[in-house]
Amino acid sequence: MIEPSTIARFTSLLGPKGVVTDPEDIAPWTSDWRGRYHGAAAAILAPASTQEVAATVALAADFGVALVPQGGNTSMVGGATPPADGSALILSLRRMNAIRSLSADDNLAVCEAGVILSVLHDAAEGVGRRFPLSLGAKGSATIGGLVSTNAGGTQVLRHGTMRALVEGVEAVLPDGSIFDGLDALKKDNRGYDVKQLLIGAEGTLGIVTAAALRLVPAIAARAVGWVGVETPAEALALLRLVEARLGDSVEGFEVIADETLGFVLGHIPGTRSPIETRTPWHVLIEVDHNDMREPGPSERLESALADAFERGIAIDAAIAANEAQADAFWRIRESLSESEKAQGPALQYDISVPVARMPAFMIDAAQAAQAQFPGTTASSFGHLGDGNVHFHVRAPKGTSNGPAWIAAHGRAINAFVHDAVVAAGGSISAEHGIGQMKRAELGRLASPARISALRAIKAAFDPKGIMNPGKLIPLPEEA
Amino acid sequence: MIEPSTIARFTSLLGPKGVVTDPEDIAPWTSDWRGRYHGAAAAILAPASTQEVAATVALAADFGVALVPQGGNTSMVGGATPPADGSALILSLRRMNAIRSLSADDNLAVCEAGVILSVLHDAAEGVGRRFPLSLGAKGSATIGGLVSTNAGGTQVLRHGTMRALVEGVEAVLPDGSIFDGLDALKKDNRGYDVKQLLIGAEGTLGIVTAAALRLVPAIAARAVGWVGVETPAEALALLRLVEARLGDSVEGFEVIADETLGFVLGHIPGTRSPIETRTPWHVLIEVDHNDMREPGPSERLESALADAFERGIAIDAAIAANEAQADAFWRIRESLSESEKAQGPALQYDISVPVARMPAFMIDAAQAAQAQFPGTTASSFGHLGDGNVHFHVRAPKGTSNGPAWIAAHGRAINAFVHDAVVAAGGSISAEHGIGQMKRAELGRLASPARISALRAIKAAFDPKGIMNPGKLIPLPEEA
Repeated sequence: MIEPSTIARFTSLLGPKGVVTDPEDIAPWTSDWRGRYHGAAAAILAPASTQEVAATVALAADFGVALVPQGGNTSMVGGATPPADGSALILSLRRMNAIRSLSADDNLAVCEAGVILSVLHDAAEGVGRRFPLSLGAKGSATIGGLVSTNAGGTQVLRHGTMRALVEGVEAVLPDGSIFDGLDALKKDNRGYDVKQLLIGAEGTLGIVTAAALRLVPAIAARAVGWVGVETPAEALALLRLVEARLGDSVEGFEVIADETLGFVLGHIPGTRSPIETRTPWHVLIEVDHNDMREPGPSERLESALADAFERGIAIDAAIAANEAQADAFWRIRESLSESEKAQGPALQYDISVPVARMPAFMIDAAQAAQAQFPGTTASSFGHLGDGNVHFHVRAPKGTSNGPAWIAAHGRAINAFVHDAVVAAGGSISAEHGIGQMKRAELGRLASPARISALRAIKAAFDPKGIMNPGKLIPLPEEA
Repeated sequence: MIEPSTIARFTSLLGPKGVVTDPEDIAPWTSDWRGRYHGAAAAILAPASTQEVAATVALAADFGVALVPQGGNTSMVGGATPPADGSALILSLRRMNAIRSLSADDNLAVCEAGVILSVLHDAAEGVGRRFPLSLGAKGSATIGGLVSTNAGGTQVLRHGTMRALVEGVEAVLPDGSIFDGLDALKKDNRGYDVKQLLIGAEGTLGIVTAAALRLVPAIAARAVGWVGVETPAEALALLRLVEARLGDSVEGFEVIADETLGFVLGHIPGTRSPIETRTPWHVLIEVDHNDMREPGPSERLESALADAFERGIAIDAAIAANEAQADAFWRIRESLSESEKAQGPALQYDISVPVARMPAFMIDAAQAAQAQFPGTTASSFGHLGDGNVHFHVRAPKGTSNGPAWIAAHGRAINAFVHDAVVAAGGSISAEHGIGQMKRAELGRLASPARISALRAIKAAFDPKGIMNPGKLIPLPEEA
């Protein structure tokens, strides 16, 4: 546990507003939102400026006190939960919540780490632009966390993950120095890409204090379609067809099994299938135009789908007739997680494989898992165009004690699914990161060259190990 | 100098074809193509496979022998020239020249490091795709070198630099281990982005042996236009207008001063100005469509230019009537360097600043340089949309001894121009890298946090310092 006299030093640095020590105020921030990980921290440090972050980190380095950076605390992998032994303090960026600049001309927003994603969405809309990354937690997730976890979402197909959207980063390195990489240079060959190193580092190399983010034109017109197909392979053929026909306008392409759709229709009142025919697989497509050119997205999507019917790829299809219908189509997609959860206990995997191998993976891995673990049902849904699906293995029907089932089988099922992913040339973490949840599996499965590269970088930046300890880097016994 | 017995160990590893020791065969590879840097090497090692590269690096690590990786040896900054003291061997990747796979469906080419860029261009064309990065040295430059220098070119505006085009990298790390990151995953959050660290590392962190590269659709129709404008600020206004109107179709946007155009017209037989009016600045625009949709690129460019005339941005304009004319427009752009060179000695800078600040920089920095160094003339041309221009300071008229002028004034002019770049929030190397030429200036100008990050990464990956020594990382006395 950290001495009160040490906390007092931070208080004299940051003032009373900058240090939270009331256990009741701290409690919500010492567990992850899913309730899987529970830690302890004697204080939350909340600096209000980059200079204060730098001074805080320098002081922590002096004392050898570990820091766990936190934005909205919405990690899916326990990445923002402090260690249980109280050996670290939480460093909250929530007071650094200014949008420093916002330029429609430059298509650029410079945001401090604590800016909440939905606040940026609104601000960008206010100047006729948008920030093209969104996810369920947008009302809590912060820019610092999104940068530090290289967040994804449903618009990656067209706009990429945070790696593609961050044009500059300001960060405090573990020695307290400020890395000022905020100038948004489209070309910069001054050596190693420190910016990309900080993106997705999960706070283990330093504290991201601000980022310059790329904005794109507002959507002028969109079309949302729903297509029934026979197999994931046909879904991929459809993706290739619409990409060839509609190019960069394809913003969303989500694949859903009919059984999964059934969960939504049974669980969410007022939902109905967008198409009449019952097909084994479904695709949700969104096509966006930045301008009002003719033909518009609906006509273009319709023409592409006519082609898909002709080639026997599509079985049935519907294009939303208005915005309300478009929202209803998307509501199905957005209700998948909740509806699946209502079916009972399940293990969920956020994985990626090369796009071309995904259709076979979706079928084969599910069948193999069901055969290996009798009674379970496995299926996947998600971002086929990114080679990223959420793969779920549900407990046998009637399993009432979820935690007990996970305790008994979780380890074996994790290993089975991850082995299948690695065999398909994929990644055991597509967009959620490693945190503490996947650390041991990363250690088990990554190549020695990758593990030693990760460790070497970590040791080089953070020789004292004070930055988000226990996250991302496999422990010595884990690799 | 390296012992013959050491060389013999490499020969027994790689066979006689894998080791070149004849000084005459080595000579062309110990100087850079511009003739500025001259080194020495007792042998060129030329492994034929990734496994051979790994064994070569492991052996070099054992002996503590430094390696200088080489592709086409077309560096602009002495990045591939070995040290003069003969303490290093050249590691040529030229025998690793297989295109391992090429898929139009996946829009992906997996190339070994020694594949020449123009060979990839042809292969991609053969399957109805293209690799959208090109530069003057395309007949010599290799994929390994392009990856290791994060190469750019004239298509960066639409397609990005190598960072955006490399989907996977295979490399041998300095301990001889193989980093197998060739699977092209669109989403992968397994920790630090080792791939992006190797891209642009100039061979100082390991040897890139292969890369998975993104292909894009072939061009179905293009329009090439030439527009006369009053100032660089008007050129930027034109860029914003055509981007708003034509979106992602704008593939090229190059800005040229009238004086520089004059150099071409005077020097290259058969060239003529595409427009009648004499305007202070000129813009070359290319608009590409991947499909045959109507209106085509010419009609769309014409309509955007009509808008530019209406708003008073354009003074005069021409759209190439056919491919021969389009090529003639581009020929002017491609002849700029040669024509400038014919004007006499000059110092050339490859720099970037934020796009919005570039118009003022182009005017102000040129005037300031001319005022500071009487008799010189300064101007810039290039990729305005990338915030990257080639800024030249020409010796006073009548200067006959170029090297003497550079020896007398080069250091002061370098510092002056680079200081101006830093003051504008820019980079002293936009696309050419650091190599040995800009190493000291990087040391002088980069922030302490950046320098210590570069040094820490270098030491972490290459503790023995055997990878391309003397390149990129400022020497102790330089920072």
